[in-house]
Amino acid sequence: MSESVLYTHDALSAFCRAVILSMGCSSADAQQAADVLLSADLRGVDSHGLARLSGYYRLFEKGRINPMPQMKIIHESPSTATLDADAALGLVSAPHAMRIAMKKAKQCGSGWVAVQNSNHFGIAGYHAMMALEQDMIGFALTNASPLVAPTYSKERLLGTNPISMAVPAGEHMPFVADLATTTAANGKLEILQRKKQPMPIGWAQDAFGENTDNPFAVKEGGALLPLGGHKGFCLGGMVDILSGVLSGANFGPWVPPFVSFLEPAANPVGKGLGHFVGAWRIDAFQPADHFKKQMDQWISRFKLSKAIDGKKVMIPGEPEFLLAEQRVKSGIPLHPQVVEDLQQLAKGLKIEFPTAIV
Amino acid sequence: MSESVLYTHDALSAFCRAVILSMGCSSADAQQAADVLLSADLRGVDSHGLARLSGYYRLFEKGRINPMPQMKIIHESPSTATLDADAALGLVSAPHAMRIAMKKAKQCGSGWVAVQNSNHFGIAGYHAMMALEQDMIGFALTNASPLVAPTYSKERLLGTNPISMAVPAGEHMPFVADLATTTAANGKLEILQRKKQPMPIGWAQDAFGENTDNPFAVKEGGALLPLGGHKGFCLGGMVDILSGVLSGANFGPWVPPFVSFLEPAANPVGKGLGHFVGAWRIDAFQPADHFKKQMDQWISRFKLSKAIDGKKVMIPGEPEFLLAEQRVKSGIPLHPQVVEDLQQLAKGLKIEFPTAIV
Repeated sequence: MSESVLYTHDALSAFCRAVILSMGCSSADAQQAADVLLSADLRGVDSHGLARLSGYYRLFEKGRINPMPQMKIIHESPSTATLDADAALGLVSAPHAMRIAMKKAKQCGSGWVAVQNSNHFGIAGYHAMMALEQDMIGFALTNASPLVAPTYSKERLLGTNPISMAVPAGEHMPFVADLATTTAANGKLEILQRKKQPMPIGWAQDAFGENTDNPFAVKEGGALLPLGGHKGFCLGGMVDILSGVLSGANFGPWVPPFVSFLEPAANPVGKGLGHFVGAWRIDAFQPADHFKKQMDQWISRFKLSKAIDGKKVMIPGEPEFLLAEQRVKSGIPLHPQVVEDLQQLAKGLKIEFPTAIV
Repeated sequence: MSESVLYTHDALSAFCRAVILSMGCSSADAQQAADVLLSADLRGVDSHGLARLSGYYRLFEKGRINPMPQMKIIHESPSTATLDADAALGLVSAPHAMRIAMKKAKQCGSGWVAVQNSNHFGIAGYHAMMALEQDMIGFALTNASPLVAPTYSKERLLGTNPISMAVPAGEHMPFVADLATTTAANGKLEILQRKKQPMPIGWAQDAFGENTDNPFAVKEGGALLPLGGHKGFCLGGMVDILSGVLSGANFGPWVPPFVSFLEPAANPVGKGLGHFVGAWRIDAFQPADHFKKQMDQWISRFKLSKAIDGKKVMIPGEPEFLLAEQRVKSGIPLHPQVVEDLQQLAKGLKIEFPTAIV
């Protein structure tokens, strides 16, 4: 981080909104998309924040993102819906789907929305966490560009397909799980590529399906590996089926690539990329106050458990909350390469790029 | 397997029913429990089948399993319910909960039942697979006796907390994921203990939280490790929160141990052990026929992907289905230690133990 430059949250958010507005999005959608992206930067998931903004812009330029989508529910039951996102930014369609899910959960205890015809939705945790204020447990999944080989396959058939679940507590910060179903994220390989360091065995395989410590393996025809082997294939497959097959989106190797220089499959099996979001209303199971007290006890017991010497037990979501608190105050660090990329984007769009905190 | 002895499915099922009837269970409950246990033996999940029968019986003798439970819904919404299982066998309460969930899914698209005051529910996949005949996606979770250390903790605070999801297909066998959220199951350690072989690093830690290859590590104060590190803690935590906290059961280190010689915690935080089961009705999202065709395409594409030399890509649930087909025909192998244990149980109950297939 020592080489990174700090910017205030508000300055970056305003910049992000301006870029998204320039695509022709409504100001409400620009605000929503900026909120999702900035929440990633605040929480330290830097690979899913502003670092991706120019990527979204290039997808828009290619006509793959529709800035003025007419999203509509194409199938529905009291607790479920299928949403056609009309090629919206996933940053916009996923929160929209989540609001539908929460409305259904209010009415009948739980709500589930499968989204088709969408694009990359950013950080999964944002969408799951939307449920917290309403005393619901939030759930968010998405499929993604194929980079991961199933067990014993040489082919890239799955995305990093994250799972996120957010659970409110009382006194404590909420429990927020947000995990790719791979051993390592592609971003971690990129760090090793820059440092020219070997990659731990188990992160990726080469083009022959062999173990490798070459951090360029995925770029050279290899594949990321599922979390913990076959179990990760099971989890990634679950995510792909709910997000892709159940929604009517593309699935498996047909999921459209995030990078604009790769074309989507010529023979799609569905529409765009898919998400699956939902919420359980806590007081559809028990009084919410009692639940939150029990969650406090769960969290306390785990936090205060005997730690390995020199280590600290952290609850899922805890490091991200602490970092977000700090970054709101002291600023968000951007890597010089990200700054350069955004400055170039700003120049092309004639938008002013914010000045760094000195 | 060479030393194992073969028995017919029907003979073992009849024996199992007789043992459970001898606890005072109804014949319907005995049939249900036997079905769950035998499905594990058929599917090759031998650790969750008849090998556990005497363990359930000892819990019954200790008064921890109620053979004539009055299960009741204590909280409800159109798509959710909380079930007090009245200390039933989990083999009985989980299918009961699943039937409630499916009834709710019929009415409003999805159904979710959190179960408190229950016991070990056997193989998670059985419960999830109940949804298949009704063209629903089934989901089953349970918490379990604490054996797993969260990241950086020296304490055993979580169970192996499995996740199962079953998805119907058309021509193909269904997709059935069923995975413990640990790197390895305790049963795998027991195999290495018998063979006096070292354990792979990453399966368990010792009492100090250090890496170890000692397969006795868990018995000597160590702990099993979550699947793939911190991500497995996130997943195991999610399962514990939905199964334990949301249901009003015990959670974390308070979950009652499966073995009858260990007493439940003196200061329980809830009632018994907890499950969380549910179902999404497929045609609450899209026509079921179209979905099943798409699932066939998903399965074909993954099965026929380029395999690593000498290997075969298998869909989650596929090896278990193939094994079950074979074992229905040729018999179920039981390990001699399991046979001896069951013969002793049979003797005490004056029930005849079946003769092996010659």
